[in-house]
Amino acid sequence: MEDKKITSALGSGGKSTNDFVKDIICKYFGNSILENLGDAAYLDINGELSFSTDSFVVEPEFFPGGDIGKLAVYGTCNDLSVSGAKPKFLSFSLIVPEGYKFSDTEKIVASAGAAAEEAGVQIVCGDTKVISASGLKSPLVNTAGLGILKKKLNDYGKIKAGDKIILTSDIARHGMCIVSKREGLNIESEIESDCADLNPIFEVSGYKGVKFARDATRGGVAAVLNEISDKTGLGFLIDEAEIPMREDVKYLCEFLGFDPLSVANEGAALLIVESALSSKILDKIKSVKVGADAALIGEVCSENKVMLKTPIGGIRNVEMPVGELLPRIC
Amino acid sequence: MEDKKITSALGSGGKSTNDFVKDIICKYFGNSILENLGDAAYLDINGELSFSTDSFVVEPEFFPGGDIGKLAVYGTCNDLSVSGAKPKFLSFSLIVPEGYKFSDTEKIVASAGAAAEEAGVQIVCGDTKVISASGLKSPLVNTAGLGILKKKLNDYGKIKAGDKIILTSDIARHGMCIVSKREGLNIESEIESDCADLNPIFEVSGYKGVKFARDATRGGVAAVLNEISDKTGLGFLIDEAEIPMREDVKYLCEFLGFDPLSVANEGAALLIVESALSSKILDKIKSVKVGADAALIGEVCSENKVMLKTPIGGIRNVEMPVGELLPRIC
Repeated sequence: MEDKKITSALGSGGKSTNDFVKDIICKYFGNSILENLGDAAYLDINGELSFSTDSFVVEPEFFPGGDIGKLAVYGTCNDLSVSGAKPKFLSFSLIVPEGYKFSDTEKIVASAGAAAEEAGVQIVCGDTKVISASGLKSPLVNTAGLGILKKKLNDYGKIKAGDKIILTSDIARHGMCIVSKREGLNIESEIESDCADLNPIFEVSGYKGVKFARDATRGGVAAVLNEISDKTGLGFLIDEAEIPMREDVKYLCEFLGFDPLSVANEGAALLIVESALSSKILDKIKSVKVGADAALIGEVCSENKVMLKTPIGGIRNVEMPVGELLPRIC
Repeated sequence: MEDKKITSALGSGGKSTNDFVKDIICKYFGNSILENLGDAAYLDINGELSFSTDSFVVEPEFFPGGDIGKLAVYGTCNDLSVSGAKPKFLSFSLIVPEGYKFSDTEKIVASAGAAAEEAGVQIVCGDTKVISASGLKSPLVNTAGLGILKKKLNDYGKIKAGDKIILTSDIARHGMCIVSKREGLNIESEIESDCADLNPIFEVSGYKGVKFARDATRGGVAAVLNEISDKTGLGFLIDEAEIPMREDVKYLCEFLGFDPLSVANEGAALLIVESALSSKILDKIKSVKVGADAALIGEVCSENKVMLKTPIGGIRNVEMPVGELLPRIC
């Protein structure tokens, strides 16, 4: 059983596919909507919706703090959460290379199922394909998600100079975790990915005073702030001393020459909040586990660039990351 | 420009990603929901919904009658249509191998955009990832879709012995098209994929008397009928002489040893309809282009197996396809 391998038959749409869906997919994702096993899931939801999708190609597929299954569930949930919606339903689509271990496939599905349960979402439809002789070593996953909109947190027009910026977690952990694992770096303290569900942060905030949100995945904090700056004509002044980061992550970034502001996170969001309510919002966020290390890191300013105040008092510009820092990071 | 290649930077989440989204994705998929370019799309839809997803791994990515972009749009639209919903919104997620031609990537996106326009759906969110050194030769696409439910066509409980079966098109064209193209078979008349939007069939039917529907993709007609048989404890008697098939497709299946009933289609559905209304429904379906070759091919029976009446008067059982007939067919 341990050595059973994924065969191309599993992706054929015939008996092997049906067996896989019954034995593995329904075992870990089981819910009455999914178990109807039609070509589509029927959903009865009312109100305005958020709809999002992401493909996950992370390599290695298992890493400290998570795996591609958990990442794929939380990744799309987080895109919904930062849009201002409560995640509700997910699709889960798996592309597995022929010859990949059956037991590892099951581990990924089990992990995705556990993540969905923790996030309170149902996986209601999906698809499995097997590709042979592609040279691909590990599975690829796509999730798409639907959430019930609570408050639109995606309206650039609401951002004004003077608004404060809350970073909900320490940074650069996911990227540095993947790099250490991939390169086989022999680091004393293993760096765990920050892969987590961000929704508790939004729930606890009650959305009051929160104007805009974005998770800082590929391209990190630098990409998010530059994109907002580009869209609004405004800018940011952030304070390096206030940016939470673990010592081991900081040292590894320095050692490998990465700017932690450009490194991917999978459990960190940037919130732009009303200045007057910023401390109250921060306190609420810090009361939930995923937001325990949240910090006020700076503010929106009228000058159209992203500026970082360094600990020695200088100011440097933070640019949009141009190239690919780390391939197959998420 | 013709020789520009996809670089890993395009999947970084930084400037190259933004440029690709602005220059290519928005150019072909452009609509006000997508152009907000947030992490999620806001949708204002009311009523019961259908939600579906599919990954597409077809190789080659360009084939007579279509390409992976068109297939990915119609494939998910068709899953929604056969569930009894009118397709409305799609996500579009692209995984491109590093070094793949930029112009071919653009062709795929353009083709998906044209297909979406023809099907009357909006592509409202998406994702682009680049994977390097994977050995993968051509892009993979995932689409997820939302449709407005008109009538649930997925309820096995409604199927009764005596109901008629309508096949909406000739069969085995998509599978035989991919095989000919892949194997470089030198066939006089090029076989085109049947890749098409099935929604006009359901719209024109008005859903009246239509009890159940399923598109016959991977595993073909044989897989659909066996799955229904498995779920209901009922069976089917279909008449080989009534099954529409093009001569060239038939000869190629015979030549290569494929059972056309197990070969994939991308523009053919099976409808289970009330016997008394079956001729009326068939006439309506034949009035739309995608249903022009539709035929009544048999009926539901109480014996729990799928039986085929052969032209010489015998009866043979049609089994669920077990292995993978054609890898990377859709």
